Amino acid sequence: MDKLHLDKALTPAGWRDGVTLTIGGDGRIASVVQESAPAGVARLRGATLPGLPNLHSHAFQRGMAGLTEVAGNSDDSFWTWRDWMYRFVGALDPDDVEAIAALAYVEMAEAGYTTVGEFHYLHNDRDGRPYADPAELSRRHVAAAGETGIGITLLPVFYAHSGFGGAAPNDGQRRFINDLDGFARLAEGASAAARAYARGGFGIAPHSMRAVTRDELTRLVGLFPEGPVHIHVSEQVKEVEDCLAAHGRRPIELLGDTVALDTRWCLIHATHADAGERAAMARAGAVVGLCPVTEANLGDGLFEGVDFCAQAGRIGIGTDSNVAISASAELAMLEYAQRFGSRRRNALAPRGASTGRTLFDACLAGGGQALGLGAQGIAVGAPADLVVLDTDGIAFAARKDDAILDSWVFGPSRDAVREVYVSGRRVVDGGRHVKRPAIEARARKVLERVIGA
Amino acid sequence: MDKLHLDKALTPAGWRDGVTLTIGGDGRIASVVQESAPAGVARLRGATLPGLPNLHSHAFQRGMAGLTEVAGNSDDSFWTWRDWMYRFVGALDPDDVEAIAALAYVEMAEAGYTTVGEFHYLHNDRDGRPYADPAELSRRHVAAAGETGIGITLLPVFYAHSGFGGAAPNDGQRRFINDLDGFARLAEGASAAARAYARGGFGIAPHSMRAVTRDELTRLVGLFPEGPVHIHVSEQVKEVEDCLAAHGRRPIELLGDTVALDTRWCLIHATHADAGERAAMARAGAVVGLCPVTEANLGDGLFEGVDFCAQAGRIGIGTDSNVAISASAELAMLEYAQRFGSRRRNALAPRGASTGRTLFDACLAGGGQALGLGAQGIAVGAPADLVVLDTDGIAFAARKDDAILDSWVFGPSRDAVREVYVSGRRVVDGGRHVKRPAIEARARKVLERVIGA
Repeated sequence: MDKLHLDKALTPAGWRDGVTLTIGGDGRIASVVQESAPAGVARLRGATLPGLPNLHSHAFQRGMAGLTEVAGNSDDSFWTWRDWMYRFVGALDPDDVEAIAALAYVEMAEAGYTTVGEFHYLHNDRDGRPYADPAELSRRHVAAAGETGIGITLLPVFYAHSGFGGAAPNDGQRRFINDLDGFARLAEGASAAARAYARGGFGIAPHSMRAVTRDELTRLVGLFPEGPVHIHVSEQVKEVEDCLAAHGRRPIELLGDTVALDTRWCLIHATHADAGERAAMARAGAVVGLCPVTEANLGDGLFEGVDFCAQAGRIGIGTDSNVAISASAELAMLEYAQRFGSRRRNALAPRGASTGRTLFDACLAGGGQALGLGAQGIAVGAPADLVVLDTDGIAFAARKDDAILDSWVFGPSRDAVREVYVSGRRVVDGGRHVKRPAIEARARKVLERVIGA
Repeated sequence: MDKLHLDKALTPAGWRDGVTLTIGGDGRIASVVQESAPAGVARLRGATLPGLPNLHSHAFQRGMAGLTEVAGNSDDSFWTWRDWMYRFVGALDPDDVEAIAALAYVEMAEAGYTTVGEFHYLHNDRDGRPYADPAELSRRHVAAAGETGIGITLLPVFYAHSGFGGAAPNDGQRRFINDLDGFARLAEGASAAARAYARGGFGIAPHSMRAVTRDELTRLVGLFPEGPVHIHVSEQVKEVEDCLAAHGRRPIELLGDTVALDTRWCLIHATHADAGERAAMARAGAVVGLCPVTEANLGDGLFEGVDFCAQAGRIGIGTDSNVAISASAELAMLEYAQRFGSRRRNALAPRGASTGRTLFDACLAGGGQALGLGAQGIAVGAPADLVVLDTDGIAFAARKDDAILDSWVFGPSRDAVREVYVSGRRVVDGGRHVKRPAIEARARKVLERVIGA
């Protein structure tokens, strides 16, 4: 049994000064003892947080970061961005995908994320045909997570249509497309790869109500009666309008009329959910997977989080397009979007509570539920996923307990994450992933070839 | 004459590979020659940008960063935040103010700002009486800028009332309050202090239309016929409502009916400007001083920048409350606020243009105008204010020219600023201000005393 002593830790019972963790061979916390630092036990100075789940990632999009900020036509939008993404994805082979994913996962670990939900829709070869192993690219994402040491819940995507009503896919989507039989074969290999990794998990991801018919969705959920189910929904106004035109219902209404929403479900974005849809998601105990930085970058709009959280709606955060991977910036943007919308401060915190703490706790629990992770936090039974903030930094001067979290999220806390442990193994030291140099060098070659071309 | 060779530089004529600058004894650029690196000349690798003006700062508020993110009453807002600020300001003596300002200015330099506009309203002693030298705290800000080497345009604030119609000031405002005679004495000392610093400039700042009567504003502008004039205006809906109730006009209408708006003017926030007010500001050539991160943090709301920029309205950025000092994050939030409001991408860039480049150029010119700086940019006659981005970082892999700016602003470009020069003198090296250790240690003592208490 390994031991670690934390000078200060955020536990489910609140902040504790001086706790010693015993970590089992399975990487889980076997005991938590409040005591002053015992001799001969490795000591984590500063303030230690539990690692956050990043519930929504498209890892390969990390390679596009900063390349789509050029104005296109007069109504540059999510849809023009999507054309960029289709072009970029066309150039990647399996080694490229793995190299870029490993870079993204290195940056996630450095940001304080210890598990990623990979919403994985890039399945086929460049010509649109499945690889010899249809799970080839799924395996590459598990391999990238394994190399960086972070946990992964692999969410292979079922994607069959280009629009509502079963419209035929377009050529730009050829690498994503499947039918249910093909998806079942792919999922078999993907789930086997995930199970073979100690920190691997598995779920499914019907892409969206526009890419999957109601019949396909019903059959898909029937084929996979357990584990997380993620879906993109109500991200764009045009998507809501098209859904109303095709089905006379809004996307989340249509989803709820097609399947039984429950705690297995994670609805990604839900930006344009109306009051009835928000109430339905909250009642179901489903998680709304917010991706604040990407939603800002893509011009999605503003989710009414104040209303949703007032109904005890469950939320988590995801880095989605990976344009700028930062857990603290993601939490800040989550709150700032609500302040823009409500013109209030501390819009998501109950009276007297820290916004940083409120959002951190909510996203730890919501992200854990959405990724099927079970116990979370610095507590017995949870994985020893630890994020150490360097509170010697001036950003934290005279900041105590929750003010440490608020200063990390909202303040000038550049480079605050000093060490990160996953399953009790240190993967980040001195603010940098221990394998960053090699992973960065490999990714650089790929980016120079794919973009430089 | 000193010389510096820049491997890559953003000049008014665009990106140039290989330019040698000659820098005069006055710290200004005397010549720009395109050539490959000459022997024996210091060489700046990476991509060099001109230093950005930070047109709006309340330096002492840096000390509060992260301390106000706790939910207050059920309508926590700008006004509850202001109560926090009034309490904090009550505890600061002149040494404290200078120590916190120096820390803020160190962080500004590290972020890529080379001049600050200090909108300075903290004038009086704790009991509300002027210091023996009424310009005591003005001098402290100039001293802090001088210690860190950055430029400062000192903008002492005239503040006389707590609300529209000349309402008497309240006790929380006692350290800010002046009458016109007292302000004239203060301004005399403040302008002398600014003139005594090679990188010092001077302007005036009537606090807001609620803190200054129309008659006082007219007389004030008459007393100071030259130099920048800054004013907080239309930041909050309540301010607009109170102005309409008291004067039957919106704040920017009232301002324009009271004084002649022109290029001397910088209107800070202007968040709730209506179409007529935006058109009036654009016609006048006045700068709108946007403070995107602070406006997000304070729940101010969304300025209609797409409409304003379509009229060639002039903008600049400021760090205002200094909650998180970052030029790249400020530019990103400027654009993201517009994307939230318009649900478009690249909302502020003309077709085919980079958003990062468009915003950088706009804020360099607008900030320079607002702070009365004259020539800006890497060009003959401008100060040798240089910000070197470390383009060896993976964030910039295969990024060229404007994509370097877009990746800095929107991408994963943590710690991208490697060196900063002000008037040809290096103040930031290896990403850290050369005096950070001493300035940080002094500020830490102050913060621990003031906050820890």
